[in-house]
Parts: sequence; structure tokens; C-alpha cells
Amino acid sequence: MNEKAPYRYYLAESEIPKYWYNLRADMKSLPDPIINPATLSPLKTEELYPVFTELSSQLEMDNTTRYIEIPDEVRDMYKIYRPSPLTRAYNLERVLDTPAKIYFKFEGNNTSGSHKLNSAIAQAYNAKVQGLKGLTTETGAGQWGTALSEACAYFGIPLIIYMVKVSYNQKPYRKEVMRTFGSEVIPSPSTSTEAGRRIIAANPETGGSLGCAISEAVEKAVTTEGYKYVLGSVMNHVLVHQSIIGLETKLAMEKLGVYPDVIVGCAGGGSNLGGLIAPFAQDKILGKANPRIIAVEPASCPSLTRGKYAYDFCDTGKITPMAKMYTLGCEYIPSPNHAGGLRYHGMSPILSKLYHDGYMEAISAEQTKVFEAAVMFSKYETILPAPESAHAIRGAIDEALKCKETGEAKTILFGLTGTGYFDMNAYASYLDGKMTDYVPTDEDLKAAFEKLPKVNL
Amino acid sequence: MNEKAPYRYYLAESEIPKYWYNLRADMKSLPDPIINPATLSPLKTEELYPVFTELSSQLEMDNTTRYIEIPDEVRDMYKIYRPSPLTRAYNLERVLDTPAKIYFKFEGNNTSGSHKLNSAIAQAYNAKVQGLKGLTTETGAGQWGTALSEACAYFGIPLIIYMVKVSYNQKPYRKEVMRTFGSEVIPSPSTSTEAGRRIIAANPETGGSLGCAISEAVEKAVTTEGYKYVLGSVMNHVLVHQSIIGLETKLAMEKLGVYPDVIVGCAGGGSNLGGLIAPFAQDKILGKANPRIIAVEPASCPSLTRGKYAYDFCDTGKITPMAKMYTLGCEYIPSPNHAGGLRYHGMSPILSKLYHDGYMEAISAEQTKVFEAAVMFSKYETILPAPESAHAIRGAIDEALKCKETGEAKTILFGLTGTGYFDMNAYASYLDGKMTDYVPTDEDLKAAFEKLPKVNL
Repeated sequence: MNEKAPYRYYLAESEIPKYWYNLRADMKSLPDPIINPATLSPLKTEELYPVFTELSSQLEMDNTTRYIEIPDEVRDMYKIYRPSPLTRAYNLERVLDTPAKIYFKFEGNNTSGSHKLNSAIAQAYNAKVQGLKGLTTETGAGQWGTALSEACAYFGIPLIIYMVKVSYNQKPYRKEVMRTFGSEVIPSPSTSTEAGRRIIAANPETGGSLGCAISEAVEKAVTTEGYKYVLGSVMNHVLVHQSIIGLETKLAMEKLGVYPDVIVGCAGGGSNLGGLIAPFAQDKILGKANPRIIAVEPASCPSLTRGKYAYDFCDTGKITPMAKMYTLGCEYIPSPNHAGGLRYHGMSPILSKLYHDGYMEAISAEQTKVFEAAVMFSKYETILPAPESAHAIRGAIDEALKCKETGEAKTILFGLTGTGYFDMNAYASYLDGKMTDYVPTDEDLKAAFEKLPKVNL
Repeated sequence: MNEKAPYRYYLAESEIPKYWYNLRADMKSLPDPIINPATLSPLKTEELYPVFTELSSQLEMDNTTRYIEIPDEVRDMYKIYRPSPLTRAYNLERVLDTPAKIYFKFEGNNTSGSHKLNSAIAQAYNAKVQGLKGLTTETGAGQWGTALSEACAYFGIPLIIYMVKVSYNQKPYRKEVMRTFGSEVIPSPSTSTEAGRRIIAANPETGGSLGCAISEAVEKAVTTEGYKYVLGSVMNHVLVHQSIIGLETKLAMEKLGVYPDVIVGCAGGGSNLGGLIAPFAQDKILGKANPRIIAVEPASCPSLTRGKYAYDFCDTGKITPMAKMYTLGCEYIPSPNHAGGLRYHGMSPILSKLYHDGYMEAISAEQTKVFEAAVMFSKYETILPAPESAHAIRGAIDEALKCKETGEAKTILFGLTGTGYFDMNAYASYLDGKMTDYVPTDEDLKAAFEKLPKVNL
């Protein structure tokens, strides 16, 4: 294609993928299995059923099915906001004066404001198929809770959300959005669960953490008849749902006649990055192409760049199974002065394995540098990004500036996971010069690592 | 076209209109001219130059040029978020169980969250062409201020914004968005202008109004060297810029093989409705088609349904020219318990004339009914609308329910002007059952009408 790429390129509705892609089916070396902390044996699918929906559990354990058909009911809801645009950042390129060609896949063009809706819809549908009475979940910045609220409203499923307390207080409007969609929102840690009461007893002033909210949501699900728990990141089935991001991106780039040299994404639990890179990582594994893949994480919560590759609990309360992943230890909670999201102590086992095996790089960024990139991007690309997403912008800008030095016209692709409308307190803090950076010391991390479970397999 | 319309239909970037459409060139009877309050003579174009940019002033007075070329620089910024999607509300149709086919043009898919960006870009560009040092404006709900902030950031023009105080306090995040784009935001009425000081002296507790903020912004512009004032609604040139909404909508509907039987839009100052209906009103005036056109306004600020068609000032401070329009009197300020936006006392002279001449109908809606529609729409169409936009949803739902009674499969088109991310206080008030309705009494309006300027032309 010789034409100039449009600013925003939309596939047709008929081009929305009909199948999710399961990268595990092509991985030469699979992630280590999830284990039952009581027996230290690999979990069986049925052992997930008390917590998760049956369909999500089956997908979680499926290492062999390469393409999974997307149910019509899920595709119908996808059509409300998908395909999402593949956007060429012409204005950013101009301002950076770089020869690089910068593309981003914009997943913020839906009310939830983020990519999280892609998995929320699939999981709410799974609950409907199973005839459940309700769902529980946790949310940090609020994007996942909003997305699942939307999906549950659409499918008519009641939803209880444990929202990390620090976000609950920083983002009062977020909870109103979730309430508008009919959800019940509880600040976590709360006194409504044993896990919450235990965490409050140990640390009454805590602002909570994703891991702690997960503990509460899981406990609530297993102790409430007809309820199951859903998770918006980290787990394998979530990454499969999110593969729709990468599949659409790759198809759109093919239609534009381009292929990325570098792919950049933010990484908290890994759902967005895992989804974006899935078909490109396939190319890399199969030797068809060799794009660089770069995860950008906050310097305050550096699980890939400074964590251990070890078995750990997925939650602070240690009631979930254990997964082999890059982790800071399930009791690690970043400083409350960290406003930039991506606060999870661990990382998707699939991404952890790809990183461990050298298919992926990782860097960390301090939040003032991230907000600097966010404000610049806002002004010239006229999208105000979520702080989480801005980590990817920071990474992409830095790659583009390297291209300026070397004169290389690389094609850089990054994932713009969402918008920052509910993060204006953090923006205000940055604009007023009050934002500070936080980087844990080696001693901080050593103390956290000492709390890793002792597992010899 | 026999295929089912997609949920979201996007024109290609190359199909973004290259010309705005000026409905006045086809109106059989023109709006009465804007007059100079000092002389009561029709204004000359040059008399607008002290306040407005030259290009905007010229377009304001141009009653004859049917199509106005959109400058390349403006189209380049339009490409960041346009074409906007024409969306089929399949889920709303299903839930309402109506034979009606409901389409909406969604103008909220940009960071400003509303259609206001369409005119903001054009006006910021006009300022750049003229080499101005800066701009001033007012904003109510904050959508216009955000949009103009984005456009000014893109074109590098400093911007001072007077924000209606009640909104400034209700929506603290809005001002942070505007600050992120580099604007200075001042709550109005303020002590920074004579108009503001006068209004505060008369009513120290006032939450302000759009009319009052306009007075301050105009005064600031004319007393600051190199600055001009820009307005986001009401005026003719704004409606011309907004015609891009209707032009895209009509082209998209043609491509889908449909034509609206009923067109519904919210009306505050009239910019969105005037833009949406422009090419359809052309058809109606030229006898090519006869769609019903329905303006929906808040019951608390009912300028079309209960106002007078009379010459009035465009602002509370009486420093602007006078326009013949439907008005509640320039000193009318709706009750502070009105959270639903659309607080302007008057109405676009073009729309006022169309209404007066029978081309358009108008209805009013109480805000609790409007939020009821907003919440329903959120749950099934997965877009959380701005309260302003929700007036159009209310009107469209009511038309669709009439179709259910009569069994008619009408094609209903409405304008979804923006998203409600910054209006969660109002949503919370509705969800908590604390929202009340306000309808001015006949005595209230009579008192306001008595303050209309006495003009005999």
C-alpha cells in the first residue's frame, strides 16, 4: 500500500476476529503449571471450579488449542466498541522530530476507558452460560471494575467489586460509574471478609493493594452461593481474551503494509501486553519475524526488572493458587505516593516465561517521567492517557528518540490501553510539581522476597 | 444496501467532508441581523473584529456562501478523531422492544468528550492565522473549555478560560484536564473583570452562569492586547463548523441506504443540534425530504418551549451585541439544583428562526427523566452519556416508545454529543435518589422577561 496511513485506521466490523489466539499452543517451552499450595501438586481444571467459571477454568488450563472461537454473544457486545482504531501518531512524530513511524492501538474508545472490557465481556458471558447468580472481583485503578460492571449490566449479572482503598479515595467518580452500571463497590481492605479483617489488623492504615483486594473478592465468591470470582489480568485465559488486541493490530498493519520493528506495552499484571504481542510473539517463536518486544513497568513496582522468577501466591492473602512468575513477593505493596497504576506484585506467567526465555525485554520508568510523556502526548495527539498507558508512551518516545539519534526509520508500535479521565488527581499532582518518585531499595525488595513461599519442586 | 448496518459505521478518513455547509445560504427567510445595542443598527463585520477573530467574524456575517472550504490544517486535526461513528443502537431497540430503528451520531470519541472540538479547532486555527497572542473563552459543564484547550495546545495558542463557578466546584477534574492542556482556568464570576465584580456585588452567593462567564471572557479579551474571544455555541459561525456532524451523518446514512424520519438533538445554545440537522434542514427547506426535527431542552431552562422570540443580549453582563432569538431573558439563571447542563438563557438565532418558521419542534424534559434515560442507555449501549446528551436520548426513547404503540418502524436519528465521565456527581445524586426537578413558574419567567431589552426595530 503506497498511500499515507490514515491517522486512525478502523477495520470493518466484519473483520473483528472470530477466534482468540492462545499463544501457549505455539510456545516451545510452556509456563510452569499453577500449583495447589496445600499439596504443591499442579492444579487440575476441576480444582479451579470452586473459584472460577467453568469455561474460564478450562481456557486457563488449555495449553494446546491454538484458536478458540469467540461466541456470537461476545462478538455482539464487542461490536459496540470494536474494532478499535490503529492510530498513527503523526503529531508526536513531528514534535519529536524523529524518523520513526509510531503506531498505537487505542483501546480507550469505550466507556470503561480501557482494554479491560475485552476479557470482562467474555467472563460475564461465561457466568451467564453457567447460570450463576453473581460475580465478585477486585479493581485497582478502577478500569477493570468499570469494564466488568458494563459487561455484567449487559448480561444481567449482579456484581460485587472490592476496590483498592487508595484508589477508592483518590477516584470517587470511578465508583459512581460502577454504581451507574448497577454494581456494589466496597473499599478494600474491608471488614466484610476474613482476609480483609486480617490485613486491617496487621496494618490498620493500609491503603490496600490489588493482591489484598483479590483475597477478599475470592473469599466472597467461595462463601456466597452461586457466585464465582473473575480476574482481569495475570491469568492465562485473560491473555487469550486480550489476544483480540494483537490480532486486530496485526491485521490492520498488514492492510497498511507495515510490520513493527519494536512493540512497546505497559505491564502491570500483563493482560494488555500479553494480548497486544500475542500474534507477534507467535511470529517470533516460529521464526517468521523478529520484532523487539519491550515491557515498561513502574520503577516503584518493578516485578520484571527487579523481581524473582519464583512460585508465589497471586494475592496478598495467600488464598489463591501459586504461579511461577516474576514477583516482588505477594506481600509487596508499592508506596502510596505511587499514582501511576500497575501496582501488582507479580506478572502473567506467560509473559514471565517469555521474558525468562529471552523473547521479551523489560524496562522500568519513574512516574514523573511517565507523566511528562503523558502531558506531551495529550497536547499533540489529543488523547489524555491513563497513567498506566503512559508507561508505554514513555517507552515508545524513548525508542523514537533513539531513532532520531541513529537516523533509523523504525516502525514502533505501542499499546494505548486507556484514557485518564479518572486520574486527574494524579495529573494535578504532576502539574503542581508535587509528584515524587519512589524506587524501592534493595533492602525493601530483599525483605519482600523473604516472604516468598518456600517451594521446591 | 441489504446488509445489516454495523453497530458502529465509520466513514474512511478520505470521506471527512472538505467543506462546511452554511444553512443560511438556503434559508428562505434569514435570521434577523445581530444589532449593536448602542445604535440598534445591524452590526457590520468589522464591528465584530475587536472581539472575535477576523475569519470567525466574516463567517458569522456570511449569509450567502453555501459551502466553506475546511483549511488543511483544520482537517489534519479533525483526522485525529474524525470521522466519528454513526452507531445503530441495536441493544436499546431490543430493550425497548420497539420496531423503530435508532441511529446515533457519537461525537464523544475524543478526549474533550464532546462535539465541541469541531468548532474549537477551527477557531484556534483562525487565531493562529491572525497571529494572535492568546484567546479567552467561557465554559459551563467544561466540554467547550476542554475542547478549546486541546485545540489551543495543538496550535500553540495561550488560553484563559472563565468556568461557571458551580461547574468549577462540581467538576474539579475538568479544570485539571484543561490545565493539562496548558490553559489558565478562572472560576466565574471572578474579581478579575468589571463584569464579574458587578455580578458578585449584586449577588455574592451566585454560582454563576454561562451568560455571566461570557461577559467576563469578552471583557478580558478586549482589554488584553493581542487577545480575542471565542464562543463555543449560539453563533452562526459555530453552527457552520458543527455542520460537519450532519454532513458526515448524512453521507454515512446514504451509504447505509437509510434516511431519518425523526431527528432528535439536545439544545442548549444550539451548536450540536444546528450542526447535526444542517444538511437535513436543507432537504426540508428545498422540499427534498421532510424529516421531523425535535429539539430537547431542560425543563429548568426552557428557552424554546417557554421563551420569547425577541432581541436579547447574548450574555448576562450585557456587553455583547443583541441577537433575535428565543430567550428567557439574559438575566435568567436556572436553579443551582439543575445538574443537567444546557443552562444558557438563549438559543442560536438560526435554530430560533427555523423553530419560529415551523421547520423544527421543541420539547422539554425534567432532569430525573433525563438521567433515567442516561442510566438505561449506559447499561445497554455501554456509553455513559453527558447529561446534556442524555436529553436527546430521552427524546429518542420517547419517540421509539411511540413507534412501539403504533407499530411504525421509523428511522430515528439522534445526536450523542458527548460522554459524562466528569458528571459523576450528578449521576451519584440521581442514583442516591437525591436529584430533584426544577421547573420555573410562569411568574419566574415573567420576571425574567421584564428584563429583556426594549427594542423596537
